[in-house]
This record gives sequence, structure tokens and C-alpha cells, in this order.
Amino acid sequence: MKCGSLLNFFVSFATSQTNNMAVTLDDKTVAELRNLADRLRIDSIRATNASKSGHPTSCASMAEIMSCLFFRVMKYKLSEPRDKSSDRFILSKGHAAPILYAAWAEAGLFPVEDIMNLRKLDSDLEGHPTPRLNFVDVATGSLGQGLSVACGMAYVGKHFDKASYRTYCLIGDGESAEGSIWEALHFAGHYRLDNLCAIFDINRLGQSEPTSLQHNMEVYRKRLEAFGFHAIVVDGHDVEELCKAFDEASATVGRPTAILAKTFKGYKFPTISDELDWHGKPLGAKADEVIRAIEQQMQPGTATGAPKILEPLNDAPVVDIDDVRLSTPPAYKMGEMIATRFAYGTALAKLAEHNPRVIALDGDTKNSTYSDRIKKVSAERYIECFIAEQNLVGVAIGAGCRNRTIPYVSTFAAFFTRAFDQLRMGAISQTNITCVGSHAGVSIGEDGPSQMALEDLAMFRAIPGATVFYPSDAVSCERAAELAGKTKGICFIRTSRPNTAVIYENEQVFSAGKGHVVRSHDQDDLVIVGAGVTLHEALKASDMLMEAGIKAAVIDPFTIKPIDHDLLVKEATRCNGRVLTVEDHYPEGGLGEAVASTLAEQRNVIVKILAVREVPRSGPPEVLLEHFGIGAKAIAEAAKKLVAL
Amino acid sequence: MKCGSLLNFFVSFATSQTNNMAVTLDDKTVAELRNLADRLRIDSIRATNASKSGHPTSCASMAEIMSCLFFRVMKYKLSEPRDKSSDRFILSKGHAAPILYAAWAEAGLFPVEDIMNLRKLDSDLEGHPTPRLNFVDVATGSLGQGLSVACGMAYVGKHFDKASYRTYCLIGDGESAEGSIWEALHFAGHYRLDNLCAIFDINRLGQSEPTSLQHNMEVYRKRLEAFGFHAIVVDGHDVEELCKAFDEASATVGRPTAILAKTFKGYKFPTISDELDWHGKPLGAKADEVIRAIEQQMQPGTATGAPKILEPLNDAPVVDIDDVRLSTPPAYKMGEMIATRFAYGTALAKLAEHNPRVIALDGDTKNSTYSDRIKKVSAERYIECFIAEQNLVGVAIGAGCRNRTIPYVSTFAAFFTRAFDQLRMGAISQTNITCVGSHAGVSIGEDGPSQMALEDLAMFRAIPGATVFYPSDAVSCERAAELAGKTKGICFIRTSRPNTAVIYENEQVFSAGKGHVVRSHDQDDLVIVGAGVTLHEALKASDMLMEAGIKAAVIDPFTIKPIDHDLLVKEATRCNGRVLTVEDHYPEGGLGEAVASTLAEQRNVIVKILAVREVPRSGPPEVLLEHFGIGAKAIAEAAKKLVAL
Repeated sequence: MKCGSLLNFFVSFATSQTNNMAVTLDDKTVAELRNLADRLRIDSIRATNASKSGHPTSCASMAEIMSCLFFRVMKYKLSEPRDKSSDRFILSKGHAAPILYAAWAEAGLFPVEDIMNLRKLDSDLEGHPTPRLNFVDVATGSLGQGLSVACGMAYVGKHFDKASYRTYCLIGDGESAEGSIWEALHFAGHYRLDNLCAIFDINRLGQSEPTSLQHNMEVYRKRLEAFGFHAIVVDGHDVEELCKAFDEASATVGRPTAILAKTFKGYKFPTISDELDWHGKPLGAKADEVIRAIEQQMQPGTATGAPKILEPLNDAPVVDIDDVRLSTPPAYKMGEMIATRFAYGTALAKLAEHNPRVIALDGDTKNSTYSDRIKKVSAERYIECFIAEQNLVGVAIGAGCRNRTIPYVSTFAAFFTRAFDQLRMGAISQTNITCVGSHAGVSIGEDGPSQMALEDLAMFRAIPGATVFYPSDAVSCERAAELAGKTKGICFIRTSRPNTAVIYENEQVFSAGKGHVVRSHDQDDLVIVGAGVTLHEALKASDMLMEAGIKAAVIDPFTIKPIDHDLLVKEATRCNGRVLTVEDHYPEGGLGEAVASTLAEQRNVIVKILAVREVPRSGPPEVLLEHFGIGAKAIAEAAKKLVAL
Repeated sequence: MKCGSLLNFFVSFATSQTNNMAVTLDDKTVAELRNLADRLRIDSIRATNASKSGHPTSCASMAEIMSCLFFRVMKYKLSEPRDKSSDRFILSKGHAAPILYAAWAEAGLFPVEDIMNLRKLDSDLEGHPTPRLNFVDVATGSLGQGLSVACGMAYVGKHFDKASYRTYCLIGDGESAEGSIWEALHFAGHYRLDNLCAIFDINRLGQSEPTSLQHNMEVYRKRLEAFGFHAIVVDGHDVEELCKAFDEASATVGRPTAILAKTFKGYKFPTISDELDWHGKPLGAKADEVIRAIEQQMQPGTATGAPKILEPLNDAPVVDIDDVRLSTPPAYKMGEMIATRFAYGTALAKLAEHNPRVIALDGDTKNSTYSDRIKKVSAERYIECFIAEQNLVGVAIGAGCRNRTIPYVSTFAAFFTRAFDQLRMGAISQTNITCVGSHAGVSIGEDGPSQMALEDLAMFRAIPGATVFYPSDAVSCERAAELAGKTKGICFIRTSRPNTAVIYENEQVFSAGKGHVVRSHDQDDLVIVGAGVTLHEALKASDMLMEAGIKAAVIDPFTIKPIDHDLLVKEATRCNGRVLTVEDHYPEGGLGEAVASTLAEQRNVIVKILAVREVPRSGPPEVLLEHFGIGAKAIAEAAKKLVAL
């Protein structure tokens, strides 16, 4: 016996001591689960043949895993697929959607024949799963993201719901090359999420060639164990081994379990199984022959009716995530110097005080973003995600699923770029989270360009349905945090590092899509639109311009998306059609383009965009603002030229 | 002896058999290396105190690692810090920049007193390293990215340069939570990059709390071994252990080495060492006392002059990365139906035929992006990076460093969002790579929204200095690929999945920033701007409009950044100031906003933007184009309304 095996033996032995739930399956159950697996296989072939696209071979490798999970292991309700107390299932390898649809259909949620509508425009049975379907919590299909979401669900189940539901996540071997999987494994291991079970469908073949590890099961085992998992290697086509492993997982206390299933892509498809060049291809003319071959192996006389499904224990609490409010209103003095990042921390604590389901997550920047302020209200409601932003966002998305919590996620705004794909998928997932990015733009100063967010507005604006808040003082920042918690979809709040003056009364009312004219005169010559630090620069510029005999109005848009179209049209028209925008951001996709595009259909309006037009560098904040053309002097100069046009 | 240790013993033993380079250090060398480490420590304290910001404690933990590397291990030239044959060093934990600057200064590259200019506007010694400094290959500071770059360098060293230089990458323990680190470790292990040495500075403390693994060295060891590394745990403050480990790394054949250095943050700083709350803080008033304490431990009489530096072997070949050309011109027939993704594959092969330094990298989508076409020219010049897009881009950036190769990186355009942070840092790194993203927009059809790139233009446009090509036919796509290889900075080529007609003669000349009027009439009523599939829809719409008595010119911008300002102004003016844009992309940050912002300073020009305005769904491509308002009929309808304004 090799040394490594000896070690695994001891680990397995120790675990099996606690495993008093393992029940030997009777022959009938084994035959039923096998037959159900084959039915799922056949359903997947038929659905993908009907749609003339899709991934039947990727479904076939996981058919036994699905039959065991859906018809022996998981506890859920057909009457309410998103029931709060039911087990969760995330299909991380979203391209295997047909078999997920088939499982729910065979369970009885909808007629099996419906899966023939796969990928049709008028069907929600899309190429990859989305929550348009009532049994899908999050969209998958961009690989490697499911496990982070599952971690969020499991963390909530263990620490906030304190309920018995378990979370299962099925991961492809190809996608396990994604770093986000390893961020999630690290998180699950660190927090000992023993209510989480990750299943790896190790079918050896990627899209264009074999995976790097192929069927090297021992390497998988070593990696998973090193990441804090109880790892069980099984024959993924053996329902008895699978069920035993799932039972062992349920009985394992103190660490999550990974079931490493050795499988074959296109299993049971003669001449196709374990062959390359069959990724993402329906079987076409071969389908009938393959289906016949599978049917011949099925055991007659079993599993003809709808399978029995285990009932969940109804032990997750009823929660209210809609009652989002600051426990006390903003309390600042006009002119007081407060960084918006600090005001965010204050708001977060107030929101947490009012609603026990407000939680905060951060990636080891909590003392910079001020998300640590929630710990004064409730240390338990802070989830440290360490320096792993993809998982940070994924966990937040998972935590928000099934309306269990109101997640606020923070890090430096620049580092949200790490999670752009997770945010993109979050929008497809109809997720409700608030991202708060601090340290925006060159105004952070000495740390230099790697820490300066200058493309975050472009990123968050491009997310469909997103709301992008850019508060310019402490009062509006507190209200932005409150509004974001109430607003569906992905919200982003951009906060700033430097202290800026309070410019609103504590009673000021804010809403998304409503800007504020913070400075105006009779017969203004132009209107300047700024946000965050540049709003304050714009106000200074307006003072300078007044001395030069030029009247400049100043607008605070409050949200960059939606942008206040009506206010901008009205003020642009009033101010001789001259609009000057200024932002601590690159020129593409930010405030300037938001204003230019909303005014694009107006004749006689011109928009001049001031922005950071090169990779910036380290230096004092106030010097950098002028150096990169977005300080008060630069604004005043640009305004003079604009008025002369 | 525990079982795991036994296994490690055998591994170490096996390795040491090949380790005939290990030399015991003499006392003088030990004293010198220790003293040099302390000098670097003191330099870091002084520099950060002068700049009143920075991370002296993060420097202190790695002082011995740096002194061993720079003054005993690495071979490099002060006369040419980016010499082609010298060892490479990447400081992944970029916030420890002061000690990197100090090491080069102590080596003699510039006066040590210059480090007192740290973080000043007129100094290139910025808060985090950038290639504005001649001894820095890539910018670091967004954590977890260095190792991918190092992998790219090591892969090039081993397979293309076939030279003796080694690559060293220093990684912080906090950042080792980033998934990108694990993607890179997987890559290095898979490709057995034995010319790569990763050093983990495990100082136990993150920014806001201890790291998740603290000083659990055995967990690090197990993880690294499971990822294919020869892992050596050392006392990171013991120069003898460190040098021995570096020697062992150099002698290890067939796999990369990880040196896991147990260190203390703020080591040798009395009352500060190993304490929380000292992250990113200069020592201020405590500095003098700390420096005195360090100086008292230094051994007098040693290391007073500039240290000796090892000379590299001059064995990397001279290469030409500027001669980029298609080996044969495009050869299509007008009207021929070819997908631009396919034309890209053809162009890639032609470019590779002409220049042996053209390489291609992909993330297991090579048979969809058609990057596999390079394999017909040279299988060796294709690097499979599997499904790990952050590392994919990082490896490409590394491969392009020191002008060694001309990297073309491809995957689905949507999945480049995974690497936004790497691309953002790539721009700061002055990197020269071409990203080619296929499967843009709703026109991919049945796979659904997770696979549809609808924010990629916003992302790549927001990257400073980037050039964004969006070719609309096969001829222009081949030329885009050729131009991208010649163009400095990050280039993006957006390719489409469906076949589209060839609309240019093979002789047509293209250049970045130059659009083409592909349809015009006397007295056009409006001009339509489309790109990729929507250009073809625009041409169809123009036909329909002609039947309704409306004359519509059509422009192909070719590049979205830079966009052809002069042409757009000229055509907009000629066409009654009416511009209609249409893009297979969300409305934010794409073609429409590029056009609207470049025309924003024109009075009497209006721009109407057609784009995908909601999360799309699965369906047939041509149906989806109309369903989401960017097909020919939708364009014609919008044009009619625009003309009526």
C-alpha cells in the first residue's frame, strides 16, 4: 500500500465512523436508478436532436449522478421548486442543461415531451439554464461559476438559516481548470461547509481535446483533500457507489465533501462513448440506433411511473428582505468633510441594524471600504472572502438566492473587474446584490494605476438591468446604500477615497434616475455634469468661471444608470445647448458617454467630455486631478473654450 | 514520521539525487546576504517614510528572499535590465515595490538615494511597479496575476527561446487565495516548467486580518505538490536555507519548484513584527528606532560595496517581432459566405507562416475560434491553456514580454470578461497582445445569453491605448489580424459566428481608425453605421428603405476604437445630420456610444442607437436579430422614424 493511499484509508476510515446513514440499496432501487439514468440519457438525445444543437454526450456522462441525486438523495418539492427549506442543486456545467430539464420532467414538474422545445425562442428551456425556469436558481453556462454560488447558499444554510437543507453542485472536469473553482473550494474548506457536496463529473474530454488531468483520479483526490474536502473517488456510472458516497457526504461533519466521479463522455453511446470530436453535437441520424442500444440494456418491468421524491424538513425561517431602511437618517453638517466610502460603512451598519438579513462580504479590504462597520452591529453577518474576488461575487449571488439575504459586497472598485464574468452571469441569473467599489479613479493618489478604478462605470453600466449609483457626498451615499438594497438587479455604488464636503441637507430625498441641480444661475452659459470628486471640482470651477463672467450650472446625476434624461435635456436646453461632463474615469463607457448618448437625439446640444485619457501614475490626489485634466482649473479652461464655440 | 512527511522525504530525496549544484555558503557570504537583506529592509522603511505611504512591513518579510535572489541566485545584467537572456523576476505582490526598487538600487542600477522619490509625481518609482521602469516587465499590484505572466515567460524560455534563463515569481500568501494563482500553478505543473520557480512569501497576515491558512505550511506543501510542483518549505529569513532551496530548484528537472517561505510581516521591526494593523503603513516616528534596532544586528565589516551579480549566458536567440505580414493576401470572391471567425483562423495561419514568432493561445475553444488553424503551420506554436481565461491572458502577456513573441489569444468574446482585470493590468504593463473573441452577440443563436458577448466592446474600449477591430467580412478580418499584430498595445478583434458575405475586394486597403462608406447615394437622408452582422443587416435595411423612397448610406467603421471621427463628421453632415447606429451589443459602451461621443461636439447632428436592450435568450440567429431590434426590419423602421424627425 502506498503511503498516500494509507493516508486516504485513515481519512476514509475516520469518516465512515460517523457514517451511520449508509443504507445498502435493494436490487429494485438499483434497477430503478439505472433505468432512470438511461431515461435521462435518452431524453437528452431526443431533446438535442430536436433542437439540432446541444451537448448530449456531456449529459450522458452524468446520467447516473442525476438519477441518484434527483430520485434518491435530494429532498425537494415539485409543488415549489424554490422552496426555502429544500435542498439546492447547481448545475455548474450549464451546457448539460438538457439532462437537468429531463430530470425535473421525469420527476413530474412538467411533461417530458416539453423537452422537445429545447432552445426554441418561445420556450424557457434554453441552451443553458436560466432562472426564467422556476427550478433554476442561477444561470450557468460560463464555466466554473457554480461552486461559488453553491458556497453562498451553503454558508447561508449553515449560518443564517441554520436549516437542514443541503447544497449540491455538479462540476465538469473541464471547468475545474477555472481558478474560480479553486477559490470556491478554498472558501468551502476554510468555512468547513459540511452541508455542501461538490460532485465532479470527470469524463476526461474537453471541447477540443482531452482535459489536462484526463482520468487521473488520484491527482483530483490529492487536490481536493489539500483544499479541506472529504474526497471520495467513485465509478460515476455505478449507482450503488454513488448513493453510498452521497450518504457518506451527508454524514460527514466538519468539512465539505467532494465526490470525484470517474465517467465517460457519451457513456452508453456505441462508437461515441469516450471519443473526441463529439462535444456539443447532437447525434442526428445516429440517435435512433443509440437509443435502441440503451433501451436494450434497461431492465424491463421497473421504474415505469413517476419516481418517489423525498420531502424536505420545513426548517428554514421565513424572512423579509424587502424591508430595507436606514435605522436612523443621515446626520451630517453641511460642509463637513467625509469620504463617501466612510459614509457607506455608516449606512451599512444602519441597514444591518434595521434588517437582520442584511449581510456584508469583502475580500480583505474591509478596513478600506469600511464594510467592517457591520461587525459592530453583528460580527456574524460579515463574511470574509479573502483575496478572491470572483468567489466573493459568486458567494454573494448564492447568498441572495431564494430571497434569503440582502448581500452588500465590497472591494476596491478596480478589483470588481476580476468578477466581470460573474457579474455578467449575475444579470442573467436575475440576481439581487449590491456591489460597493471604493478607491475610484486617480483621486486615490499615491498607490498608482493598478489600484485606480477607471473602467468600473463602463463595466457596471454594460450589465443589463444594473443600477449605477455615484454619490457625491455622505448624505447621498447613505441614501444610495439604502436604495440599492431595495432595488432589484445588480446595483453598484462607486465610493471615493478622499474626504469631500457634505452638500445636501439630511432631509434631501433621492431616487434612482433622478439628478439634482446643485448650482444654477439665471441665464447659465453652460451646464457641467460631475460626480463624486469631480462634482466638487465642478463647483470650484463654477466659482472660477463666475469671476471670468461665465455662468456655469452644475448637475449631480446621482445615478449614472439610469441617467436623468429629462433633467439633462431640460438643463442642456436652458444652458444654450452646452454641456460639459467631467469624470474620474476613462472616457469610454462612463459618465460622459452616458450623458452624450442620452442627449444624442437632441439637435443643438453639444457635449464636451473631460476624462482621464491615459494610464495615470502615482502622485498626490489633488495634483493628479489637474494633471489628468479633470481638476477645477481644467474644467474652467474647457468651459471657456466650450462657451466660445 | 507521519505518512505525508515520509512521502515528501522520498520526493526530496529523489530530487536531491539530481541536485549537484548545491553549494554550502561560506560565512562571509551568509553575513553579506543577511546584511544586504537588512539594507533592503532599511531602504524600504526610509522610502515609505519619505512618501508617507506604502508597505514597509510587506517588504520586510521578503528581505532575505530578495537578497538571495538578487545577490546570489539570479543572473542578470545591470547594463541591460531587460536583456533577452537574463533571468526574469516578477514581483506578483506589487505593493512590496519599495524593496524591488531597493534591490535594483543596491545592485547598482541607480543611486540608492533615488528611492526617496517613491510615489512622487515626477518619479517612475510608483506605488506599484510598472514598465515605465526599465527593470520591470509587467505592472503588478492587482494581486494574483504575476504567476501567469511568469508562466508565459517560462514557456517561451523553454519551448521557443530554448534558452537557459530562469523565471522567478514572488507571490504573497494573501494573494495566493486568488484563483488565477491556481490556474497558473496548474498550467506550470501540466507543462512541467522546470525553469520556473515560484516563491511564496508566507507572512501570515493580510490587509485586514490573518490569511486563511496563516502559517499552516503543510497545507501549502500539500496543495503545491498536488499541483505538480516540487515544494520546499523553508524558514524565509534564513539565507542558507533559501539559497539551498534555490539551488535545489535550479537542479530539479521535469517539474517547477515552489519555495514556501515561512516569514513574518515586519520582520526585525520591534513591536511591529507579526502584528496586525501594520499593513500598508509607513513607520513614521517609529522609523528611526526600528532602523537602529536593525542596524545593531547587522554584522559590521561586510557587504560595504556593491554586491557581485552573476552574468547570464547569452543563449536566447535574436528575433524579429516587427515583421508581421500575411504570407499571401486574402483570396475571396465577392459575395462568398464566410464567417469572420473562420477568416481569422486563415489569417492566423498565414501570419504564422510568415513570422516564426507568431504564436496562438486558446482556452479549449480552438475548434470554435479557429485558432487551431495555426497547428497546420506549426503545432508547437499553439499553447493550450484549457478553460482558465485569466491565466490564458496572463500567459499571453508573459509570452509577449521582452519582445519575444507575437501572441494571438482567442476564446469566446464573452469569456474575455473573465480576464478584465488581467487586461486592465496589461494596459498598465504596456503589453502587446491581440485578443480575438468569437461568438459575439445574439447572432450566435441557440446557445443562449451565457455564451453571447454583449459587453465585450465596452470592456475593450475602456482599456487605455487599446485598438478594437470589428471586421465585417473575411477580407477585412484577415487585414485586421495582420494590423493587430503590428499595432502596439492591447488589440481586440471581434469575430462573428454566422457566415456573412464578402463585401470587399481582396486588394482593399485597411487601417486602424479608417472607416469605409460601403453604400451611398446622392443626397442621402441618413447614414447607418453597423459592424459585423449588423453591417449586413444595415445593407439589407438600406435596400428596403430605398423601396420606401428613403436613401440610406451605410458605413463600416472597421475599428470601434479609434473610431473614424472625420469620416463620421463628414457623412453625418452630408446626410442631414441623421445618424443611426446598430450593434449586436448592449447599448452601453459599444458602437453607438463610440459614435455618439465622437459626434457629441457637433451641433445639428443626432444619433439614434439601436442595440440589444435586455438579457436575450436562445433562438435562431436571424430571428433573434429582429426580436431584439437589430435586424434589417428594425433598422428600416428606426430609419423611417429618424427621417421624420
